[in-house]
Amino acid sequence: MGRKSPCLKPTLVTILTFVALYAFFNTFLTPINPNPLSFESSSNSPFSILSSSSSSFNSPPPVKVYLYDLPRKFTYGVVESYLKARDPSISIPVDDVSNLKYPGNQHSAEWWLFSDLIKEDRYGSPIVRVLDPEDADLFYVPFFSSLSLVANPIRPVSGVNVNSNVGGSVYSDEEMQQSLMEWLEEQIYWKRNNGWDHVFICQDPNALYKVIDRIKNGILLVSDFGRLTRDQASLVKDVILPYSHRINPFIGEIGVEGRNSLLFFMGNRYRKEGGKVRDLLFQVLESEEDVIIKHGAQSRESRRMATQGMHSSKFCLHPAGDTPSACRLFDAIVSLCIPVIVSDQIELPFEDAIDYKKIAIFVDSDTAVKPGHLTKMLRKIRTEKILEYQQELKEVKRYFEYDDPNGTVNEIWRQVTLKLPLVKLMINRDKRLVRRELNEPDCSCLCSNKTGARPTF
Amino acid sequence: MGRKSPCLKPTLVTILTFVALYAFFNTFLTPINPNPLSFESSSNSPFSILSSSSSSFNSPPPVKVYLYDLPRKFTYGVVESYLKARDPSISIPVDDVSNLKYPGNQHSAEWWLFSDLIKEDRYGSPIVRVLDPEDADLFYVPFFSSLSLVANPIRPVSGVNVNSNVGGSVYSDEEMQQSLMEWLEEQIYWKRNNGWDHVFICQDPNALYKVIDRIKNGILLVSDFGRLTRDQASLVKDVILPYSHRINPFIGEIGVEGRNSLLFFMGNRYRKEGGKVRDLLFQVLESEEDVIIKHGAQSRESRRMATQGMHSSKFCLHPAGDTPSACRLFDAIVSLCIPVIVSDQIELPFEDAIDYKKIAIFVDSDTAVKPGHLTKMLRKIRTEKILEYQQELKEVKRYFEYDDPNGTVNEIWRQVTLKLPLVKLMINRDKRLVRRELNEPDCSCLCSNKTGARPTF
Repeated sequence: MGRKSPCLKPTLVTILTFVALYAFFNTFLTPINPNPLSFESSSNSPFSILSSSSSSFNSPPPVKVYLYDLPRKFTYGVVESYLKARDPSISIPVDDVSNLKYPGNQHSAEWWLFSDLIKEDRYGSPIVRVLDPEDADLFYVPFFSSLSLVANPIRPVSGVNVNSNVGGSVYSDEEMQQSLMEWLEEQIYWKRNNGWDHVFICQDPNALYKVIDRIKNGILLVSDFGRLTRDQASLVKDVILPYSHRINPFIGEIGVEGRNSLLFFMGNRYRKEGGKVRDLLFQVLESEEDVIIKHGAQSRESRRMATQGMHSSKFCLHPAGDTPSACRLFDAIVSLCIPVIVSDQIELPFEDAIDYKKIAIFVDSDTAVKPGHLTKMLRKIRTEKILEYQQELKEVKRYFEYDDPNGTVNEIWRQVTLKLPLVKLMINRDKRLVRRELNEPDCSCLCSNKTGARPTF
Repeated sequence: MGRKSPCLKPTLVTILTFVALYAFFNTFLTPINPNPLSFESSSNSPFSILSSSSSSFNSPPPVKVYLYDLPRKFTYGVVESYLKARDPSISIPVDDVSNLKYPGNQHSAEWWLFSDLIKEDRYGSPIVRVLDPEDADLFYVPFFSSLSLVANPIRPVSGVNVNSNVGGSVYSDEEMQQSLMEWLEEQIYWKRNNGWDHVFICQDPNALYKVIDRIKNGILLVSDFGRLTRDQASLVKDVILPYSHRINPFIGEIGVEGRNSLLFFMGNRYRKEGGKVRDLLFQVLESEEDVIIKHGAQSRESRRMATQGMHSSKFCLHPAGDTPSACRLFDAIVSLCIPVIVSDQIELPFEDAIDYKKIAIFVDSDTAVKPGHLTKMLRKIRTEKILEYQQELKEVKRYFEYDDPNGTVNEIWRQVTLKLPLVKLMINRDKRLVRRELNEPDCSCLCSNKTGARPTF
């Protein structure tokens, strides 16, 4: 301290000033992550660094999404109708929509995506919301189509047939679908590109079913393709969403302590189509000692029991339901309960990013219902292998958490952005296609050449 | 100057030092374009800026490509065989491959891509070459498959049947294809993912035809789908490449001065399949005064004449050949001669980025061969509209210049990177698919719902 000079040489000050000025320009006048510089300008920069990640200079601009300002009845109005049907004392429309609560259900992605788009601060999102449709790459249609399916009163209002589309004040999902299309088909941006650049959410397998052929050019956000034909939806054009999990995530560490039962399942024993396997699984599993398999419908109490069961089992059975997907899979994942998937037609969310073989066990239906087979196979899996699965489950958990800021919502948008090049291609191609008489539809496909694989794990 | 203080206050120095230190950390310890920070870490940064381009934080890492070190005979060896067959005095193998010249031809993309990948400085490319296959997202197989098709001697060597696969020193493309597959099928990275992550170039419609079913999982770089079935190739899985233009680009400005003929075509009058339209077009066009339509084969002299014709015509006819594509289209584009495309099945390169309706006129075959129709339609197009087309042609020209540093090569790689999410999806999905008996192939498709569009311009 005694040696400290009270007076520094101007040279040092000059150097410091220069560095400080450079810092100022570099730090505060450049965005943290500058947008792609052109090849020319970047190579002319006096401080350019030839980094190996040079490709980012060619990275595409962010995908711009326009949120349609739909008439209120298609968004908040659906929630209000739902609530009003269950509690007629509620006064609607509510004054402050921020008090409006979307009901807890497995198809709530429509609410999460809408809420995300109207947020002020969308920092970290893979898409940018634009307010001018002229700027948009894609158009999001935020109709709450899944809630609309169940917005009717649970019990018929006396004297009114709820199935009728005529009943004055009674909510009709079909009328809503028709009304949405009437509104949309008037929009210039809908007409401009035949809907290729429009995004619809229809997470419930029956959502938008009346108008699906009119929107099939669009990107559909769905749970599976169980009720959709090949020309309506596909892995190439559309996005598979996870259901919202309905039970609480398991908070503890990985491990088999406290997970005393081998296999757990609770749900409806009787289902249609692929879901018929359920009854057969009940038959081969219900007498097994370390297996908990229960018939039960959705309720607060059954969710409590399912939580307890999934948090205390090593494996969780996921048989097909009426369609190949079900929310139970995502309940199992957040419970760190290794899913045992018996659903031959299942499509899984975000499968480009997630290797499901690392987090789940796949068994084809025929093998799964052989007496004794499933439990014998599961009992053979060593503890280290179980811990490996659990560790992987933990790592991918965020993909299934709609309320995680870096979770499901961002991942759905990322998936949507991946569709953009094909959307643009189809728009441009359709414009110049000449009239052709074809023997088969004009389709571009990606086919699995897998002739069959033994179920393995 | 007289007021300059020789001695600065320590406070200022402290501030400057602090700023300089911050600058040092911020500038020199952070790459120019840092890789995606996690959402959490970026929002905790003391100097985080909430920019509208926040999405770049979620931008994917660069796509990493491994270039197979194929036995020499599949790359430089093909060029040598080709040259040797034409000039037996050449001594091969050459000592210095940098002297080896790939022959000028329309299928030279295989040479350009290979040369690009082995370049030291790949700055500005949408992909990064990795030297360890473990790091790779995609694997490039650089066999010169198109040149291999024509590497045989033009005239049979006396006493040897060039069509025989047995002839000792005679080059056999079919043997090369078989030999490539034998080599590849031994590679662990080929076996690992059933070839989904492999990239092949087969620009000539006949290239790799013998083994196409063994490589069809891969990304194929092709000119069109004329000789490929739907389960072998598609717009979704593969990439359409432009041919290398064979005539010199038009250097001048846009304009109609010096472009006195209305429509130009020079090429083979007689072709198979869709190309049969050519003879009909000759019949309706050859008597028109301001139309130049000539029968001619590939030669240096015909290229000179084609250059002159394309540089001095407003429109250039592009009828289908044996397959829907042909290099003539790209000759026309770089000539700023507005292409008139009469090829009902044509697929076009980079159509997500290029709106071909802005640079070309599409006429279906039936309409094009109606006597008087085509010329009448073209004569009606006003000069302003012609200049608009030319301006657009000028803007997209770089996409068709293989030697432009920001041209075709980068665009092909960009197209390849766009396939990666679907490649990863198919890899993961195939691993967990259970054996299924299906009535039809397991395909995901993107279908045009266009039932027909009147040719317009």
